[in-house]
Amino acid sequence: MKYLHTMVRVTNLEQSLAFYGQALGLVVVRKNEYPKGRFTLVYLAAPGEEQAQVELTYNWDPETYTGGRNFGHIAFAVENIYATCTRLMDHGVTIARPPRDGHMAFVRSPDAISIELLQQGEPLAPAEPWISMPNVGSW
Amino acid sequence: MKYLHTMVRVTNLEQSLAFYGQALGLVVVRKNEYPKGRFTLVYLAAPGEEQAQVELTYNWDPETYTGGRNFGHIAFAVENIYATCTRLMDHGVTIARPPRDGHMAFVRSPDAISIELLQQGEPLAPAEPWISMPNVGSW
Repeated sequence: MKYLHTMVRVTNLEQSLAFYGQALGLVVVRKNEYPKGRFTLVYLAAPGEEQAQVELTYNWDPETYTGGRNFGHIAFAVENIYATCTRLMDHGVTIARPPRDGHMAFVRSPDAISIELLQQGEPLAPAEPWISMPNVGSW
Repeated sequence: MKYLHTMVRVTNLEQSLAFYGQALGLVVVRKNEYPKGRFTLVYLAAPGEEQAQVELTYNWDPETYTGGRNFGHIAFAVENIYATCTRLMDHGVTIARPPRDGHMAFVRSPDAISIELLQQGEPLAPAEPWISMPNVGSW
């Protein structure tokens, strides 16, 4: 038995690829278009860790997606949580829970999927601008 | 960067451990109780694949969890999809989308988290009782 992926639905594939790809740092492993079903599937994963994936389902006919409390978040370990959060901010992503402790941060995808970031190994030394950065909304 | 886990919230830890553990076949990797925060975290994973986990969050003070469309499902590859579905049924789990094709099935957790099961490698030969088993609900 093996974990394959967590699937999330996205309203805008371009925005979602910018978020999960350029901003978060995942890489596209596979992309399949299904014209008959009118949907596209994109599989992303951490570089070099292609077996554990996030699957984006993009339905070509517009739908609005809201969240529910039974799902919590998807978590990734990152090499440098400050570098990851800086890159996310550079792409316009709000850091909902900044890494004030050098250890943990939360952001949300364009469709409000909560993403947890955890510093690999020991926490980094607390540093600005993170120490002074307030929480924004929920995550 | 590395995928760590997908977190879901559960209203009943015992029922959820029966579902994700005995019925689905994941094993408990770690369990932590937080009396001050009044919650318990349980991490499960496929046997021998402990790095990619499902995190169950059990809040001791009752909450009701509903689903949202932005989250889709969590997917696992299984060695024998018929054996997995039989075990799930033996534990009272409804097979929402039976593996009529010997390839794919869907079930839902006690908190309506959708779980996709995919046969590893080639699909199995179509067989009863699956061929004649109708879909139940959505997934």
